[in-house]
Amino acid sequence: MEVASRAELVRDALDRVGVDLLVVTKPANVRWLTGFTGSNGQLVVTADELIAITDGRYREQIAAELDASGVTATVEVTTTEVGDILARAAPSGARLGLESQHVTWKQHDQFAAWLPGRELVAVDSLLEELRKTKDPGERSRLERAAAMADGALSRAVGELGNRPTERDIAQQLDATMIELGADEPSYDTIVASGPNAALPHAHPTRRVIEGDDLVIIDVGARLDGYGSDMTRTFVAGGDPSGEQQRLYDAVIEAQAAGVEAVADGVEERHIDDVCRSVLGDHGLLDAFIHGTGHGIGLEIHEEPILSPRSTGILRTGLVVTVEPGVYLSERGGVRIEDSVVVTDDGCEPITHSPKRVVP
Amino acid sequence: MEVASRAELVRDALDRVGVDLLVVTKPANVRWLTGFTGSNGQLVVTADELIAITDGRYREQIAAELDASGVTATVEVTTTEVGDILARAAPSGARLGLESQHVTWKQHDQFAAWLPGRELVAVDSLLEELRKTKDPGERSRLERAAAMADGALSRAVGELGNRPTERDIAQQLDATMIELGADEPSYDTIVASGPNAALPHAHPTRRVIEGDDLVIIDVGARLDGYGSDMTRTFVAGGDPSGEQQRLYDAVIEAQAAGVEAVADGVEERHIDDVCRSVLGDHGLLDAFIHGTGHGIGLEIHEEPILSPRSTGILRTGLVVTVEPGVYLSERGGVRIEDSVVVTDDGCEPITHSPKRVVP
Repeated sequence: MEVASRAELVRDALDRVGVDLLVVTKPANVRWLTGFTGSNGQLVVTADELIAITDGRYREQIAAELDASGVTATVEVTTTEVGDILARAAPSGARLGLESQHVTWKQHDQFAAWLPGRELVAVDSLLEELRKTKDPGERSRLERAAAMADGALSRAVGELGNRPTERDIAQQLDATMIELGADEPSYDTIVASGPNAALPHAHPTRRVIEGDDLVIIDVGARLDGYGSDMTRTFVAGGDPSGEQQRLYDAVIEAQAAGVEAVADGVEERHIDDVCRSVLGDHGLLDAFIHGTGHGIGLEIHEEPILSPRSTGILRTGLVVTVEPGVYLSERGGVRIEDSVVVTDDGCEPITHSPKRVVP
Repeated sequence: MEVASRAELVRDALDRVGVDLLVVTKPANVRWLTGFTGSNGQLVVTADELIAITDGRYREQIAAELDASGVTATVEVTTTEVGDILARAAPSGARLGLESQHVTWKQHDQFAAWLPGRELVAVDSLLEELRKTKDPGERSRLERAAAMADGALSRAVGELGNRPTERDIAQQLDATMIELGADEPSYDTIVASGPNAALPHAHPTRRVIEGDDLVIIDVGARLDGYGSDMTRTFVAGGDPSGEQQRLYDAVIEAQAAGVEAVADGVEERHIDDVCRSVLGDHGLLDAFIHGTGHGIGLEIHEEPILSPRSTGILRTGLVVTVEPGVYLSERGGVRIEDSVVVTDDGCEPITHSPKRVVP
C-alpha cells in the first residue's frame, strides 16, 4: 500500500475545501493516512507538517506503525494538552477543518474553546472520497480477505443439512477464516434461517436450521484492516419449494443485472435502479427494504453508497458490493451479494463462492 | 429489567436540562430506553409521548423488541421523513435536546435545517448518568456474563503452558463463553504475551506463548446486551522471574487497595488515587499509563470513568471496573481487573477468577 503518499493527497485538497489545515479524528481515516490502528489518534495535516497525537497507551504502537508505513510525522503523546498542540499548529486567523461527519457537537464546541480566533470549517467526506479508490495493495488485501471467506463458506455449506444451529455455522465460518489467515471476521457473521431470514441484520441464534429453511449467510474476513463482504442464500436441505425457488431466482437475476451494470462512469444510483427494476418485474419491489450496495475497505460500509439517493459516479478502482435481497415476514428471505472492483468497461468480482440454492 | 419505566426517568429530567423534548440517537441509549437493538433508531421523548423511528430493515424487529420490553411507543418506519416527524413532535418555539456527545456536527446542522424556529439544546450525558445505576435485572445479566468469562478462563489457563499462540487462547476463550451461554464476547478478547503485554490494547497475534512470558488475558462475555470485563495476568510456564513476581505483586496490591476503597459516597477520583499511590510506592507510577476503571453495562466503557480527572461520586448500584496495570517496553506488562458492584459500605466483585501468577 502507498500509505506514505496519502497525506499529500489531503494537502492538495486543503485549498479546495477552504481550509489551511485539517484535523483528522475518525479512526479509519487516521489509519488510512498513517497506518496507526489505535483507538485514540488525531492527525493534524498542515501545508508542510503532519502531526500525530495519541495518549500514553499507544506510545510504542504509534511509533512502530508509522515507521512500518514509512510515514514521517511529528508524534505527540499527551493526555491533556491537545488544545495547546492544535493552537500551535493553527495560528490565529487560520481556517481549521474538522470532519463534520465524525466530530460531535460537543467536540466541536471543545475545539472552538481551545482555538479562539480561528475559523472552524466543516469538512464533509474529504477523506472518505479519497479512500473510495483502492490502490493495488488495498485491492490485494480485499481479494485475499474475500478468498478466505470463500474458503470458509465452502466448508460450512456441507454442514447445513445436518441440523446445526445458526451459531454453529457462524462459529465455524469465523474459525475457518482465521485458520485461513484472516485477522478476524470483518463484521458479525450473519447466519439467518427460516423466519430469521426475514430480518436483514439478524444475529445468529441457537435456532436449529431445518431442512426446508432458507438460510442467508453473510460473511467476510478482515486482513490488515481491509474487510471483505459476501452473501449467499441456500435451502438447507437442498430441496427448495416452488416459492423459495421463485424468490431465489428473482434475486439471482437482480444481482446479476446489478453487477452487469457496474462500470467506470456509471451513476451509482443506476446500479440500485437496475436491481430494483428486476425485483419489481417479479412483484417483489416492496420486499427489497435496503440499499443495493456500498464501498468496502477499512470500514465495512464506506462510500460510495448505492441507493436511490446516490448522486455519485462509479470510477475505476472503486470496490463496491451489489446485494439485492427480498424479505417476507415469517417466510424468510433471500440475499445475494458480491464485492466487485470497478474497471474501465465493467467490473471484476472478488468474491467467488458458487451461487446455488442447493448447499 | 424495568425497561418500560425508564422513559419516565428521562421525562422527569427534561425540565432540569432545559428542554421540552429530547431526541435520543445513541444506540446504547435507545436500547436502554426501549429494548430496541437495531443499528438505526431514534427516540423522541416528549412530556407525554415516546416516538420510535427506524427504517424498513427493522420494521418487524422494533415491534417485537418494544413488545418484549413492555414499552408503549408510536413507531414510525421511514427512510426519508425524519425531519417531518420531528417537526410534528416539536412545535415552533420548542426547546429540543440533542445528545451532544453523540450527534455529529453535520447531524446538528441537519437538525437545525429540519427544525427552523426551534431551539436546539446540547444535552450532555443525561442518559449516561441514568444508565450508571444498574437495576436488578441488569446486575443479574452482568453477573451471569461475568461467570461465563470466569468459566472460559478457568478452562483456558490449562493450555498456557503448552506453547499455544495468543490467538489459540483467544479463540478458545470466545468459543467457551458462547458454549456457556454468552451471546458473544463483550469486546475483542486480549491475549498479550511477552513484549506484546507491554501494549495495553494489544490484539491477539499468531505469536507462540513461551514459558517465561507474562501473559495478560482480558476477557468478557455479553449477555442480553450487558458485557462483563475482567483481566488476569500469568507467567505461562508457572515460574516467574524475580522481576515478574515484583511487578505482579505490586499490581495485585494496587488492585486490592482500589477495590477496598470502593463504596457509596466515595469520590471516583479516589479509587484512581489509591491505585496510583500504591504503584508509586513501588516505583511504577510511570508504568501505569491508563485510567483505573470505568462503568460497564450496555457499553463496555461507560460512565463513570475512574481517572485522575474524574469529578463524580460513586453510588450504590453502580458497576465499575478496577484495573491498574504496569507496562514496560519489551519486558511486558501486568494488569489485574475486577468488575464490582458498589454497595453502601463497600463493593461486591462479580468477577471471581482466582488471582495467581501461576496458571
